[in-house]
Amino acid sequence: MLMEEIIEHKRDGLTLTSEEIHFFIKNYVNGEIPDYQASALLMAIYFKGMSSYEVSILTKEMRDSGEVWDLSDIDGLKVDKHSTGGVGDKVSLVLGPMIASCGAKLAKMSGRGLGHTGGTLDKLESIPGFDIYETKEEFKKQVNEIGMAIIGQNENLDPADKKLYALRDVTATVDSIPLIASSIMSKKLASGADCILLDVKYGSGAFMKTKEEAKKLGDLMSEIGKHLNKDVRYEVTDMNEPLGYAVGNNLEIKEVIKTLHNEGPKDLTELCLNSGAIMLIQSKIYDDYDKAYEALLNNLKNGKAFNKFVEFVKYQKGDISYILDPSKFSVSKYQIPIYAEKNGKIARIDAFAIGKGSMHLGGGREVITDTIDMSAGIVLNKKVGDAVKKGELLCTLYTNKEKVEDIIKEVKEAFIY
Amino acid sequence: MLMEEIIEHKRDGLTLTSEEIHFFIKNYVNGEIPDYQASALLMAIYFKGMSSYEVSILTKEMRDSGEVWDLSDIDGLKVDKHSTGGVGDKVSLVLGPMIASCGAKLAKMSGRGLGHTGGTLDKLESIPGFDIYETKEEFKKQVNEIGMAIIGQNENLDPADKKLYALRDVTATVDSIPLIASSIMSKKLASGADCILLDVKYGSGAFMKTKEEAKKLGDLMSEIGKHLNKDVRYEVTDMNEPLGYAVGNNLEIKEVIKTLHNEGPKDLTELCLNSGAIMLIQSKIYDDYDKAYEALLNNLKNGKAFNKFVEFVKYQKGDISYILDPSKFSVSKYQIPIYAEKNGKIARIDAFAIGKGSMHLGGGREVITDTIDMSAGIVLNKKVGDAVKKGELLCTLYTNKEKVEDIIKEVKEAFIY
Repeated sequence: MLMEEIIEHKRDGLTLTSEEIHFFIKNYVNGEIPDYQASALLMAIYFKGMSSYEVSILTKEMRDSGEVWDLSDIDGLKVDKHSTGGVGDKVSLVLGPMIASCGAKLAKMSGRGLGHTGGTLDKLESIPGFDIYETKEEFKKQVNEIGMAIIGQNENLDPADKKLYALRDVTATVDSIPLIASSIMSKKLASGADCILLDVKYGSGAFMKTKEEAKKLGDLMSEIGKHLNKDVRYEVTDMNEPLGYAVGNNLEIKEVIKTLHNEGPKDLTELCLNSGAIMLIQSKIYDDYDKAYEALLNNLKNGKAFNKFVEFVKYQKGDISYILDPSKFSVSKYQIPIYAEKNGKIARIDAFAIGKGSMHLGGGREVITDTIDMSAGIVLNKKVGDAVKKGELLCTLYTNKEKVEDIIKEVKEAFIY
Repeated sequence: MLMEEIIEHKRDGLTLTSEEIHFFIKNYVNGEIPDYQASALLMAIYFKGMSSYEVSILTKEMRDSGEVWDLSDIDGLKVDKHSTGGVGDKVSLVLGPMIASCGAKLAKMSGRGLGHTGGTLDKLESIPGFDIYETKEEFKKQVNEIGMAIIGQNENLDPADKKLYALRDVTATVDSIPLIASSIMSKKLASGADCILLDVKYGSGAFMKTKEEAKKLGDLMSEIGKHLNKDVRYEVTDMNEPLGYAVGNNLEIKEVIKTLHNEGPKDLTELCLNSGAIMLIQSKIYDDYDKAYEALLNNLKNGKAFNKFVEFVKYQKGDISYILDPSKFSVSKYQIPIYAEKNGKIARIDAFAIGKGSMHLGGGREVITDTIDMSAGIVLNKKVGDAVKKGELLCTLYTNKEKVEDIIKEVKEAFIY
C-alpha cells in the first residue's frame, strides 16, 4: 500500500477503506509516513469529506494508536462529558458535582485553554494545591470512591490525535468536521467511559459558527458512537455571548461556587440542569428527564452538589479553604470598569471578543507555552436582553498588566446596545 | 506573513497576492517553510485552482528562485521548444536541425525520461560520446556558432521547481494544471530563450488525457507568456498512438536520421514541419507560414537539415560515424516479432501501453535511479488506419531481458483492430 495512492483516492472523492485508514494512522504515528504526506491527505479530507463509516474507522484507529483505559472495575456506568469549547464555559465544574451527588460516576479528562477559549484544567489549577494527576489507578479509585474525577489528558492516550492536531494547526486543516469529530471522539473513547454527552457549541465564541454546522458535528459524533457501540448523545448550545458572567480562571471558579450554592447565572444553571438530566438518564439512574432534573435542582438547593465539589477539590489536593471562602482567591491589581455610553438594550455581547480580551488581559494563552495569570479576566455585569442606562456598568476587566487601552477598546466594542 | 494564513486563503478560494506567492517560494526554497505546509498549499491549489495572474506570479517567482540565463549576446532571437511528453516523441531532434538549417537559433535544455515517456537527453546519449554538458558559456557559444544546442537542465536553474516537483510526486498533486504550467514555464523562462513553442499532447500516452484539458494547459501557458512578456505559442497534438514507429532510445535516433533524410514516418515529419514553420515565424525569419514550411521541406530534401544534425552531434562530442552509418548502433540480443491474430484495420495503438512496454523491456526508467538499455524498445510496423492481415507483423520488441511473456501480452493488447 502506498501513501500517495491513499491521498489520491481521497483527493478523487473515494471512500477510504479500513485497511487504508489503518495503514495511514499506524505508519503516521510510528513515523514511517512523513508529515508532508499526512498534511496533503488532511487537506484532501478537508475538501472531500468523509462518510460516517470512514470517520468511525479513523476514530477507532486513532483511539487504538495508544493506551485505551479500561474502567470496567469501577462500579456502575461511567459517564463523560465534552464541550467543544467556548467563553466562560465552566459547565463541567458545576455539572460534575451535581450529577455525582445524585450517584453518577463522572470519569473525565480535560484540556488546557488556548486562544480565546479557556480550559477546565487551568480553571481547576487556580485553586491552590489542585492536582491534575494523570494516572489510571488513582483515577479509577477516585471515581469509585467519590463519584467524580477531572484529570489531565494522559500522555499515553491517543498519540495519533496529538500528532495530527499539531499538524492541522499549521496547515489550515483544523476546520474540518470529520477531523474535528475524530479528534474529539478518539480521545473520549480512549479514556474509557461508557456514555458520553457532547455539548456542541455554536456562535461567535465557538468553533462552529452556525447552529447547522454544530448539528452536523453532533450528528457525526453520535454516528461514530453508534458504529463503535457507545451511548453518545449531544446537545447544541448557544455561544454567541459568554456563558454566565465570569470569564477567566479564578473568576470562573468563584462563579462555579456561587452556582453550586444555587445563586449562579440563569443560563449556566439551566444548561447544567439540562445536561445533568441527560447524563443521569445515560447513567441509568433515572429514566425520566423531569425527575432527573428535579433531583439535580434539589441537590443545588440542599447543598449536596456544593459538598460534592468540596469533596472533589479535597480529593485532588486543592485547598478547600478557598472554596469555603472565595474571598481568599487572589485578586488582580487593576480592576477596570467599563460603563455604558448610552441608554439601550443589550443586543449582543460578542463572546469571541470577550474571550480574546480576557486572554490579552493575561487570563489565557496566545501560544501553548504562555503562562496564565489566574486572577485576570472579565466579569460581565449585563447579559443579552438586559436594559442598560448611560453610565451603568457593563463589565469589569481584571488584570495585572499596565497598558490595556487597546483591550478596553476591544471589549467595549463587544457590546452592541 | 504566516504560511498557515496563505494556505487558508487558497483553501478558501481567494486569489493569493504577489507578496504571498513571493513569501511562499522564497521561504520554501530556503527551507524556512516546511514540506508539510507546502504540500497542504499544493493540495489546496489542486482543488481551488489559480487565476492566470496568480500562475504568472508563481512562475516568475519560481524562475527567479535560481539563476536566470541571459542569452542576449547570442545574435538574433533564441527559440525554445517544449513537449509535455509522449511516447516516441523525438520531435526536438528532427525539428532542431531543420530550423537551425534555416537560420533559427534553438537554445534548449532537455530532461530525462521517466515512466512510460522517454527523454531527449537519454536518446541523445545513445549516440556514443554525446555530451549533455550544462554550462552557460559553452551553450551560448554553440548556439551562436551552429544555431542549435540541446543540453541538460543546469542544476542552478529553478531550484523551486525541483523541490516542488519532488513534493508533488509523493503527495498526489502532480495533476494540477496551474502547477504543471508553472513548472514547465518557470524552467523554460529561466533558460533564457526569447520565444517558446509548446507542444501540448493529449491522449493515452500523454499527461493530459483530453484535447480540452490540453487546450486549457496551452492557454494558461501562453497567458503566462503574455504576463511575463515572452512570445509563447502552443499547439495541441494527438498522443493516442506513439509518434512515428520507433519507441526506445537508439531506435528513435535511427528514426530521427531517417526522418532527416526525408524518409521518416508521415506523422512525425508533418509535426516537425508544422512546428518548425511556427518557430521560424517566432524567430522572425519568415512571416508567412507556407514559405517557412516550404523552406523546411526543402532542407529535408536537400540534406541541409541532416547535415545540421551531424554538425550538432559532432559539436557535442557525439560519434558521427553512427549518424552516417546507423547500422553501427548496438542492437539488442532479442528481437521479438508480434503478429496479427486476425484480419482487420488498426483502430487504436495505446501509446501508454507501448510506452510502458518499452520501459519494461529496458528502454525506460520505472524510478529515476534505474539505468536504461539504449537498444531496448519497440518498433511498430503498423499505424492507426492501416489494414492488417492475420499473420502480418504488428511490431517488434527489442530487449536484452530473458523473461518477457508479460510484456508481450501487454504490448499485444495495445493493438485494437
